[in-house]
Amino acid sequence: MSTSHPSQTRLEGLIEALRRLPGVGIKSAQRMAFHLLQHDRDAADQLARALDGALAAVGHCARCHTFTENPLCDICADDERDAQQLCVVESPADQAALERTGSYRGLYYVLMGRISPLDGVGASDLGAGQLMDRALDGRVQEVILAVSFTAEGEATAHVLAEALKARGLRVTRLARGVPAGSELEYVDLSTIAHALVDRR
Amino acid sequence: MSTSHPSQTRLEGLIEALRRLPGVGIKSAQRMAFHLLQHDRDAADQLARALDGALAAVGHCARCHTFTENPLCDICADDERDAQQLCVVESPADQAALERTGSYRGLYYVLMGRISPLDGVGASDLGAGQLMDRALDGRVQEVILAVSFTAEGEATAHVLAEALKARGLRVTRLARGVPAGSELEYVDLSTIAHALVDRR
Repeated sequence: MSTSHPSQTRLEGLIEALRRLPGVGIKSAQRMAFHLLQHDRDAADQLARALDGALAAVGHCARCHTFTENPLCDICADDERDAQQLCVVESPADQAALERTGSYRGLYYVLMGRISPLDGVGASDLGAGQLMDRALDGRVQEVILAVSFTAEGEATAHVLAEALKARGLRVTRLARGVPAGSELEYVDLSTIAHALVDRR
Repeated sequence: MSTSHPSQTRLEGLIEALRRLPGVGIKSAQRMAFHLLQHDRDAADQLARALDGALAAVGHCARCHTFTENPLCDICADDERDAQQLCVVESPADQAALERTGSYRGLYYVLMGRISPLDGVGASDLGAGQLMDRALDGRVQEVILAVSFTAEGEATAHVLAEALKARGLRVTRLARGVPAGSELEYVDLSTIAHALVDRR
């Protein structure tokens, strides 16, 4: 549908624009539009300004590909990080989760997605070539694949690990095992099986 | 939180603005922001323009209180509608549902909400006074309360019906009964009980 449909009202245009957000259907979009116009015009204005500001200023880090407003993100620009370790994650949210642990001091590469044949996302769409260039900078000794343990994450890890190993890099993955604080009785069988194999 | 927090990045500002949409939590807001910036910048721009356009142009109809870009909405401005019937609905979405039936030719009053003591919404917040003024224009013969058959809708209907009847107006409600196409076996007991009482 065009945004300049001649007989479309601005309310319909707003509902249509809200529907393009991921996970928002027609009912949610209507509810959002009515709420913004009736009860929270300030939030609508804030969102319009935030969208414009982010579109104008937010780009990708030249080294790790995450979102940043500068040529390099804060982590890549930090001289005190260990440049011998490169951790590959799927999204800035996953990167933030790893940072919150406080137990990783290396650098990152953010894929901004994962291989998903059903959605038409292959290795080249993920910028696997860029990752190879990044990993072969002469300083990286180990690439840690911190992608999801889902079918799509496994496929991503497999493809990237093969390509990185073929270039002589050491490749590791996050350990699979029983989550902290969980009782064995309630852990799924696949996780227990992996934890048994990887026992230490 | 302020939108001009000094150390807040524009990405964080966008996530915070998206969180103000109804039904959107931190995870959804992150996913929306990443999706817009990574995969659909065109949708982000369309949404910013739609918000600005709606904020600038969309107001309330002077007669029925629904959203419109003109002083009067299309329905209130239509001379061929029956000015003796006034149908009270909770939202423009409910009004649209009634219009789609094609079986109502009167006018509307849109409450833009319902009485909800838990959310601090009383009769005056709903503009009950405005509804009284509208219903007492000298032409309205019957007020049809087409509010929800929920606890809050029932409270709204009760309060409005009392006030309207006290001013000498005829007040009706939508019939309760078994929905079209449903098998009795699967209809809830309250609906069947109402359908029995209102049998014809």
